[in-house]
Amino acid sequence: MTQPVGIAPEGGPSVFCGAVDVGGSKIASALFSESGEMKARTRIPVDAAGGDDAARQVVEAVRSLESAAGDAGGRLAAVGLCVPGIVYSGSGKVWAPNIPGWDRYPLGGKLDKALGERRPRGEGDGTEPVIILESDRSAYVAGEAWRGAAAGAADAVFLAVGTGIGAGILAGGRIVHGAEDIAGAVGWFGLDPAFKPAYAEMGCFEAEASGSSIGRKARDMLRAGRSSLMNELASGVVENVTAEVVAAAVRKGDAAALEVAADAVRYLAMGVANIVSILNPEVVVLGGGLFQSADVFLEPVRREFRLWAQPLAAEKVRIEVSALGEDAGLYGCGRLAWQSL
Amino acid sequence: MTQPVGIAPEGGPSVFCGAVDVGGSKIASALFSESGEMKARTRIPVDAAGGDDAARQVVEAVRSLESAAGDAGGRLAAVGLCVPGIVYSGSGKVWAPNIPGWDRYPLGGKLDKALGERRPRGEGDGTEPVIILESDRSAYVAGEAWRGAAAGAADAVFLAVGTGIGAGILAGGRIVHGAEDIAGAVGWFGLDPAFKPAYAEMGCFEAEASGSSIGRKARDMLRAGRSSLMNELASGVVENVTAEVVAAAVRKGDAAALEVAADAVRYLAMGVANIVSILNPEVVVLGGGLFQSADVFLEPVRREFRLWAQPLAAEKVRIEVSALGEDAGLYGCGRLAWQSL
Repeated sequence: MTQPVGIAPEGGPSVFCGAVDVGGSKIASALFSESGEMKARTRIPVDAAGGDDAARQVVEAVRSLESAAGDAGGRLAAVGLCVPGIVYSGSGKVWAPNIPGWDRYPLGGKLDKALGERRPRGEGDGTEPVIILESDRSAYVAGEAWRGAAAGAADAVFLAVGTGIGAGILAGGRIVHGAEDIAGAVGWFGLDPAFKPAYAEMGCFEAEASGSSIGRKARDMLRAGRSSLMNELASGVVENVTAEVVAAAVRKGDAAALEVAADAVRYLAMGVANIVSILNPEVVVLGGGLFQSADVFLEPVRREFRLWAQPLAAEKVRIEVSALGEDAGLYGCGRLAWQSL
Repeated sequence: MTQPVGIAPEGGPSVFCGAVDVGGSKIASALFSESGEMKARTRIPVDAAGGDDAARQVVEAVRSLESAAGDAGGRLAAVGLCVPGIVYSGSGKVWAPNIPGWDRYPLGGKLDKALGERRPRGEGDGTEPVIILESDRSAYVAGEAWRGAAAGAADAVFLAVGTGIGAGILAGGRIVHGAEDIAGAVGWFGLDPAFKPAYAEMGCFEAEASGSSIGRKARDMLRAGRSSLMNELASGVVENVTAEVVAAAVRKGDAAALEVAADAVRYLAMGVANIVSILNPEVVVLGGGLFQSADVFLEPVRREFRLWAQPLAAEKVRIEVSALGEDAGLYGCGRLAWQSL
């Protein structure tokens, strides 16, 4: 260790916090100093078997962070851990649809058993790191509010638009969880009174504006015989037309793609506006797969949401694309770990 | 004093908190015990001159509460004070459109000057009550979550539907204020992609579903020649047709009124659903003038919001009409005062 990044109170060992971001396909982990400097990052694939095997990988990740903290002359005081789904705060159970067997899976209990009971601060003997479980979308907003596009904000929302649509909410400096730990289900925003069957499956906003839905709308258009550059861009295979293909065709001025994008932008603008009106955040951070085509979707959403949102809230809010990208979860877990101390 | 309702720690004097609810036309005040028992309530008209005259009435209300607490053998430890509009937490300024001159009016500063500097707990000498300023809608949700329809809930929303539409939000036991103290502006929810000019003035949800808008839609229908019982109920004067008249005609099975109500219910259901999906509250409390016709509007909203909301959040949430009615603000101010100690 050449650069101590932890804090060393009164000459004692440095203190670090750890972050473990469990995604649908990988487990990333890192150590963080109190100021948000990242160290000792690792990344491994999630065991395809899921269940207890994936939980064991999480335990190993925490043990590795303990070792890494020790190697750096310090100790691991707390670990933030996020999962791609929902964390039920009362029970420590998790629901993560992309990990087999993680359907109300008792991850918190498994970690306690493997790592020793993790106690809230002040109740343990000080040698065991506290483990903070959080949903990925809540971690994203915490990360962006620490070192990303919402740095310093106490009121911020991370809106993830990809396969689905969901939001992480920070209000007055605290994560909003809701009564059942499922706050932020904005994919279910009703934005169009003309109800369609798809709304019952995934929610109106998600059915109209997720990356998957944008791809589907484009494919439906092509199948209905509409001529478009999107056909060539997908090498004539309609099944290959995704939101990325729509964005590529928009960049070339394709009329059909512009129509699909404008339709999605209208709903995205309404969704962002509704978030702004109800929560009055300082920043809305846009993330997820769709905003990797930020050149196509960001500016129109920034313009159009003002048509809908409470005017003063609209004037004050910033609409930004994620600054941390794939690292938002790690930073968020690090932040939540530090905040727990 | 025959029934001490305050608490008397270690044999000292009883402690009370006060509540002052400034409305558009009246100032109500009361003392509260820690358990929420109300004492010494008063109610006076707001001075029509507004401005400093109305502020002086507030000062007098606080002084009267101090006297009442003393008469009861105790002291006033804190006062919650709500105004019909917005409280800017940083500056103590208020915006209350129904009180002349209260447009970024420095109410907090005026009270400090008149009553002596009120300091946050622990910083004063313990003899001066702390004053907590809050918006009315935030006070309503705090009150309902104390002794009303959301009693005991840490996650609750008060949705006020009357002349306008707005919400007070409690998340994880704390009021959500937003970055500019204007959270809860749900009257601006975008619920219909077919933008209309009225949306720019007051927001889509408010333009489609406030009590005023329901009355306006009914009047437009009658002026367009639609025959309806509403004409008789308003003694043939179309200008007298309000949301109450619509409700009265619905009770008699009038087709035109049923159409107006069904249209409003669709938007009310979407608005409630959007609140449920983003915040996952335990209870949504419906208040304001419109829900005085709860027999007409409550059950349809309870049924229809499920069509739109995230299914698990919809299953768990309760949708209730305000239990405290006009006293929600007083109870909320009392609660916020106690919570400040």
